[in-house]
Amino acid sequence: MAEKDVRNKQLLLRHYVSGFPKESDMFVSSDSTIKLKLGDESKGVVLVKNLFLAADPHLRPLMQKDDKFSVSQSFTPGSPLYGFGVAKVLDSKHQDFQEGDYVWGVTGWEEYSIISSPENLFKIHHHTDVPLSYYTGILGMPGLTAYSGFFEVCGPKKGEYVFVSAAAGAVGQLVGQFAKLIGCYVVGSAGSKDKVDLLKSKFGFDEAFNYKEEHDLDAALKRYFPQGIDIYFELVGGKMLDAVLMNMRVHGRIAVCGMISQYTKEEHEGIKNTACLIYKRIRMQGFNVVDYYPLYPKFLEFLLPQIRNGEISCVEDIVGGLENGAAALVRVFNGHNIGKQVLSLMNDE
Amino acid sequence: MAEKDVRNKQLLLRHYVSGFPKESDMFVSSDSTIKLKLGDESKGVVLVKNLFLAADPHLRPLMQKDDKFSVSQSFTPGSPLYGFGVAKVLDSKHQDFQEGDYVWGVTGWEEYSIISSPENLFKIHHHTDVPLSYYTGILGMPGLTAYSGFFEVCGPKKGEYVFVSAAAGAVGQLVGQFAKLIGCYVVGSAGSKDKVDLLKSKFGFDEAFNYKEEHDLDAALKRYFPQGIDIYFELVGGKMLDAVLMNMRVHGRIAVCGMISQYTKEEHEGIKNTACLIYKRIRMQGFNVVDYYPLYPKFLEFLLPQIRNGEISCVEDIVGGLENGAAALVRVFNGHNIGKQVLSLMNDE
Repeated sequence: MAEKDVRNKQLLLRHYVSGFPKESDMFVSSDSTIKLKLGDESKGVVLVKNLFLAADPHLRPLMQKDDKFSVSQSFTPGSPLYGFGVAKVLDSKHQDFQEGDYVWGVTGWEEYSIISSPENLFKIHHHTDVPLSYYTGILGMPGLTAYSGFFEVCGPKKGEYVFVSAAAGAVGQLVGQFAKLIGCYVVGSAGSKDKVDLLKSKFGFDEAFNYKEEHDLDAALKRYFPQGIDIYFELVGGKMLDAVLMNMRVHGRIAVCGMISQYTKEEHEGIKNTACLIYKRIRMQGFNVVDYYPLYPKFLEFLLPQIRNGEISCVEDIVGGLENGAAALVRVFNGHNIGKQVLSLMNDE
Repeated sequence: MAEKDVRNKQLLLRHYVSGFPKESDMFVSSDSTIKLKLGDESKGVVLVKNLFLAADPHLRPLMQKDDKFSVSQSFTPGSPLYGFGVAKVLDSKHQDFQEGDYVWGVTGWEEYSIISSPENLFKIHHHTDVPLSYYTGILGMPGLTAYSGFFEVCGPKKGEYVFVSAAAGAVGQLVGQFAKLIGCYVVGSAGSKDKVDLLKSKFGFDEAFNYKEEHDLDAALKRYFPQGIDIYFELVGGKMLDAVLMNMRVHGRIAVCGMISQYTKEEHEGIKNTACLIYKRIRMQGFNVVDYYPLYPKFLEFLLPQIRNGEISCVEDIVGGLENGAAALVRVFNGHNIGKQVLSLMNDE
């Protein structure tokens, strides 16, 4: 008997975006349908029901046509967005996955997705004692990003001075906690009083400040780092990067993870202090989590016990339903989220 | 019998410089005198007669008051300039040096210098079969800079695509030859037809171009590197760096050695393409030869045979006499030198 088609609600890009994205740049459609069984021709393919979708900053560049910096493929107008998410396998023609498995990896912003290249899909083994949604954040791509960026790229040592921008976000909050764990002095910047409070009270940052209240970022950094900065975990770019360069110490390291302050600008701000790299012998290194996927098992082994014993915590900002997906993304782009912004589809029927 | 005082001609800074240095910003004086014998109180000190002085780009930032990027001490108006040079020891109260030794290291722009911290003074052992002046360049600081920057910082592999800016200068000409030696494809940029010809005919660069004749540096780089750039040896900064960032390959490396195009600017140009670092996972690393002094013996062992058998060559631009020192420096800052700019004091009497 042929499997019946079911509705597959989707969040689609309406048109390419320049400048600041609006909710109306995306739209929800229930026009699409899908069979919840894979045919014999679907070799190597996995069919999933999406449970949680990550509203991540890196989706912004994909909304514009030919982002000149990105090496990723832009979204296609009229097609659903895609990004990291947590899903349940409904059917599988791939040997590594079976019906009933929980997985995280790149999936679509829709109820059901057919994943045709599951190389970067990770099976979730530990879903009974930590929230499943954590695999969009602390235990997923942002977690591995923070881990590999801080430990592998920065090469931190006990007692070093660490600065994290966008510190209340999914990656930043973890970097700060990792830094404290190994005995660094950590300061974070964020865009609201609530976030600053969170950094100090919940995540144990030594200090934190609201960059919107600082007219002179250079002066702010000199206040918090009179001795200078050994490690900068870069998530915002622009003026903050310029100010940090002036405050780095000799042999400092900058892990360049993201530049969210720049993604909505027509032209990126010019960085005037790159000459600091020479005199202070600074290593400034861009990185991408894809190069560190082999570390994922080691990362889980390190982090799961820390989460269970409460040494490391995370804050999520969960919104429900594909209808609220565009709003969740806009919240992230304008920094109104506190913690990891997640879209839950658990109640979508 | 007390040693007689002799004249010590010097090139002094007249006043702090902003913008483009002129010859009149410096002046020669014969007012100073010196005893050519060290007193018993001069423990650990070396007295030298200077033979060759290096007119190096990095002297420019030292001519201004409080260069915001530099961690070095600026020159003092009314005092002689200092920089790398080759000298002969006239008297020594330091166990490592003896009268008659030839040395290279930091010395003054004057006939005779008293070197009170000879930790970074290197004894010259091979002066009979290579020109002594080479120790201001290919066998001295610029040579070790090229060697450590290319081999240690860039980590080059056979077959990689290498771009060198300011390629006809003391460091650039060597980096290009090192890259060819290990089987890379090498393109250099320089500021005149003569220099471009030199790069191709003398130093074996695969291609070279005159950046002054390119209205669109991005297009020029795309012409020479349709596949992109694996390694950029950065000596100029500014617009060139911005164009290079757009043309780097994934996992590319940028060794940031100098930014001569920026040293004479009131405000450095803003670099707008730093986001490329993220998507292409580029490592951009500032470095300074001081961190690589321990490699000097290994470097000599590698390079001396290459010079003797003609595999590696160098071009020097030698000018005689302290009276011509200011002109030699101005030549370097405006790029009129071809090859390593050296000031010879061999005939100063």
